Amino acid sequence: MFTLSLTDKSARRGHIQTPHGTFQTPAFMPVGTSGAVKALTSEDLEECGAEIILGNTYHLYLRPGTNIVKHQGGLARFNGWNRPTLTDSGGFQVFSLKDISKVTDNGVEFQSHHDGSRHLFTPEKVMQIQHDLGADIIMAFDQVVPYPSEHDQAAVAVQRTYEWAKRCLETHDQLNAGQELPQTLFGIVQGSTYKDLRTQSAEQMLSLEFLGYAIGGLAVGESKAEMEDMLAFTIEYLPEDRPRYLMGVGYPEDILMAVSYGVDMFDCVLPTRNARTGSVFTSEGPLVYRNADFADDSRPLDPDCDCKVCRRYSRAYIRHLYNQSEITGMVLSTYHSTYFFQNLMRNIRRAIEENKFESFRKDFLEQYTQGR
Amino acid sequence: MFTLSLTDKSARRGHIQTPHGTFQTPAFMPVGTSGAVKALTSEDLEECGAEIILGNTYHLYLRPGTNIVKHQGGLARFNGWNRPTLTDSGGFQVFSLKDISKVTDNGVEFQSHHDGSRHLFTPEKVMQIQHDLGADIIMAFDQVVPYPSEHDQAAVAVQRTYEWAKRCLETHDQLNAGQELPQTLFGIVQGSTYKDLRTQSAEQMLSLEFLGYAIGGLAVGESKAEMEDMLAFTIEYLPEDRPRYLMGVGYPEDILMAVSYGVDMFDCVLPTRNARTGSVFTSEGPLVYRNADFADDSRPLDPDCDCKVCRRYSRAYIRHLYNQSEITGMVLSTYHSTYFFQNLMRNIRRAIEENKFESFRKDFLEQYTQGR
Repeated sequence: MFTLSLTDKSARRGHIQTPHGTFQTPAFMPVGTSGAVKALTSEDLEECGAEIILGNTYHLYLRPGTNIVKHQGGLARFNGWNRPTLTDSGGFQVFSLKDISKVTDNGVEFQSHHDGSRHLFTPEKVMQIQHDLGADIIMAFDQVVPYPSEHDQAAVAVQRTYEWAKRCLETHDQLNAGQELPQTLFGIVQGSTYKDLRTQSAEQMLSLEFLGYAIGGLAVGESKAEMEDMLAFTIEYLPEDRPRYLMGVGYPEDILMAVSYGVDMFDCVLPTRNARTGSVFTSEGPLVYRNADFADDSRPLDPDCDCKVCRRYSRAYIRHLYNQSEITGMVLSTYHSTYFFQNLMRNIRRAIEENKFESFRKDFLEQYTQGR
Repeated sequence: MFTLSLTDKSARRGHIQTPHGTFQTPAFMPVGTSGAVKALTSEDLEECGAEIILGNTYHLYLRPGTNIVKHQGGLARFNGWNRPTLTDSGGFQVFSLKDISKVTDNGVEFQSHHDGSRHLFTPEKVMQIQHDLGADIIMAFDQVVPYPSEHDQAAVAVQRTYEWAKRCLETHDQLNAGQELPQTLFGIVQGSTYKDLRTQSAEQMLSLEFLGYAIGGLAVGESKAEMEDMLAFTIEYLPEDRPRYLMGVGYPEDILMAVSYGVDMFDCVLPTRNARTGSVFTSEGPLVYRNADFADDSRPLDPDCDCKVCRRYSRAYIRHLYNQSEITGMVLSTYHSTYFFQNLMRNIRRAIEENKFESFRKDFLEQYTQGR
């Protein structure tokens, strides 16, 4: 499924083929929590240049329910996207419900945040759900620990993630056998910020036949230096010929850092969540567009951006819409930030092709941080 | 400004030229209360075929304030629309704040619904505000009475509307003289459901030199039969060579009825407001898409519609988004209903051109009411 076309030092340029089409890497996946990237349509996402979007297993399982998504032709068709999709394992969500979830070796019992109903996620159940949702890439059920965690606690989670990974693979292989559009399962390396546990988790995961590997448990509160240290350490274990997905990352500077170590895939809610709450990413850094400073500012959100929002609308207008809680304001700001991230990925891919990723990274960050 | 191209019995086909471009009539104006048609972008409105949108003077005056809209180049430019716009007089809004407004011959004192601050709208002030907002078509300040109203109360409002209209015209002429992009002022005929008052108001308004005439005070709670009766009676007074605008209407069946009497312009929040609250207009009548019946329904909102939403998304998906309060759901439902109304107007215009408006109306209503 993964083709590595060329490298620029450790940075990698490739593409991934799925039953719903091909996407170019390095790729940033907008997050469509409940089957929609908040405030955007699938047309918007296409225009922005997104080639794969992410759906949250936990949310879609609860609402509208896996049966409906399955009966409507799977996630890509249900949400009118009809291109590659990825679902997460639900692990991150159920472990963040820490007061209403209980973990055992069998799985996780948790209560719905909607209505308090009780549910059980086991590796087998999560595989069944993700097969019903029908995303092209699905994730093994893992135990995520908070940051910081004690070594003992993180070690238990690593071992459990390994045991669960074996059960996921077994169930996945059975389910995939009968499937019209085969799905691809990625394993997840955990280990918190402990190098010995990262080594153990990586070796355990590599002993299993996953077609792609994710690095989980980062961007959960640790410093940027710690994140880089753990990423640099962990990625050395991952095979060249499989895609590498750094989960939940992140800021433009983090993406550039991670690409330099050879990461191929990213996802994060930052561009969309921040846009809805009054701040967008621009070529000169984050812009808190809700600020009164911009009430009469006729410039676009990002004067260097050629997206349809920046070509047409002023900061004054978008700030006004934000202040009036107008839906249109959230649409416009989310569109720009989504475009900004996709444009960043386009530029990263081009820079790798031209063998000048590091100079691109330096130039980008120079402009990006000049306003600070 | 108004060209009447042809008629089909009393139905009229024409166009109106403004400094920001031309729009075809009969026209339906989507309502952009605070400078945005809720949930839609200007691109969406163009795609749907809207040629003129309406802004609310009351809302824009309070937020972001007339100075900002003026400094940003006027309403059409501020909201990234750059095509014809119309602002209402604010009368309808301030009179609906009945507990916190006080009317005298001079004008209306009212409190902002945002912060309780006190404001005064006089005819002169409302003209100044609408000139600052810079819409192509602006409306005289009128006194709207609720339905039902006593004859005495309605009579006072008619006379006051006349006195205010004279003051509006005088101020408007002064302001227009120095204006780069001249604006057009419409007068409004009031009179509640009393024929003698409608006659009086129409004759008073016609004695003044307005370039267009609106019929106000309808669609405020009276029956459909009363609305038709008043419209049919009042429109007889209006000159052939000036555009006729029926304010706040309405449902597809009301628009068809009013076009048959020779109305040229309409506006209403129904398509957008209903869409956001779970119901859309379709060729087979209103569809309450939020209903559980549609949870697993793979059909589009309107199988007979060729808008981009109906070509791509299912009822199951849009209902799910509604249930999750996803912004994207409001965008998709609002887009469809806006397209539906613009498509209705396109079909009405074509039917008049082909001299078969009445048979079009009959066929449309037959399909539209078949589900009832």
